[in-house]
Amino acid sequence: MNYSTKWIKVSRDELLKDLAEKIKPSRYQHVLRVEQTAIELAKANQVDIEKASIAALMHDYAKDYPLDEMKALAQQYWNYPLLNEAGGNIWHGFAAATIAKQDYGITDKDILDAIAVHTIGWHAMTPLMSVIFIADYIEPGRNFPGVETVRQITQQSLDQAVGYKLTHNIQYLLQQQQPLFLPTIEFYNQWIKNNMV
Amino acid sequence: MNYSTKWIKVSRDELLKDLAEKIKPSRYQHVLRVEQTAIELAKANQVDIEKASIAALMHDYAKDYPLDEMKALAQQYWNYPLLNEAGGNIWHGFAAATIAKQDYGITDKDILDAIAVHTIGWHAMTPLMSVIFIADYIEPGRNFPGVETVRQITQQSLDQAVGYKLTHNIQYLLQQQQPLFLPTIEFYNQWIKNNMV
Repeated sequence: MNYSTKWIKVSRDELLKDLAEKIKPSRYQHVLRVEQTAIELAKANQVDIEKASIAALMHDYAKDYPLDEMKALAQQYWNYPLLNEAGGNIWHGFAAATIAKQDYGITDKDILDAIAVHTIGWHAMTPLMSVIFIADYIEPGRNFPGVETVRQITQQSLDQAVGYKLTHNIQYLLQQQQPLFLPTIEFYNQWIKNNMV
Repeated sequence: MNYSTKWIKVSRDELLKDLAEKIKPSRYQHVLRVEQTAIELAKANQVDIEKASIAALMHDYAKDYPLDEMKALAQQYWNYPLLNEAGGNIWHGFAAATIAKQDYGITDKDILDAIAVHTIGWHAMTPLMSVIFIADYIEPGRNFPGVETVRQITQQSLDQAVGYKLTHNIQYLLQQQQPLFLPTIEFYNQWIKNNMV
């Protein structure tokens, strides 16, 4: 894909070259698969495919950064007290959004937020945010129990897939006796409210 | 048990008589079993058994009240915006605490809070609060899958039983696609933090 200069100031090839230096090879392959899935989901859900490609390629950009650097970058994107107590699994999305803004001149809030909240979801998900949230979950390399079910749900409704991922993420954290991030719970509550029969 | 006049201005018999008029017979039997279990747990955990009896007998006092009345009473106890959006399952504890205060002259914060939060838990559980929280969960009439496990855990550690109930309550709400009450999540996070190895 050839990027216009509308959303990002580098070409896709330049972005890929940078990315290969920032993340480990297995993650690089994951990111390419997320991009592929994100483009498919974008087409099926009337989302701009260039925006989907950019957000997908950027989403894990900071995941192999040292934790202190990742955290500092994340806090530049979102000055929220509870973020301080979260961990790398939450910080890396916000950190990548800061990098997208500062180093790649991305200003589109939809792209930036889709990168930022790709692990936690948000109380007001745009279609692009949902595309990245789900592409990361069902890209062809994923093989957790139930992934085929989510792939089928996604074909019928992206929003239902969002609810599925969200609920299962919270269940997983409970099983692992891990803390829950309050904004994720607020988003879950919002989702339930929107989908109540 | 004969109550002193230290915590409540009526006798146990008078409280039971009132209670029988307020809640349906099957619930009345449940409340008596919660009291019995609460007294056992109080003895095992160095908690005042009179306080345990009072809190146990009062905990479901408002559960058969009309929802609008229950909600208004709950909000008198806790002026918290999110309480407004909760439901009867959360309101009835806070409503009972208001009744305990207004109609029975109970002023002891520990008793009142143990009644108030018996379904949701709290970020700073006192031993009495834990006793009521767990007695309600494992009284002899309870027969959900896993109740025997919780009874065994309780014998070893009341606090571990609190964590078990809390985690399973959240899991149940997720399975039922019900909203999660944020203070319960904050309490869960606090419990996890306190119990991290």
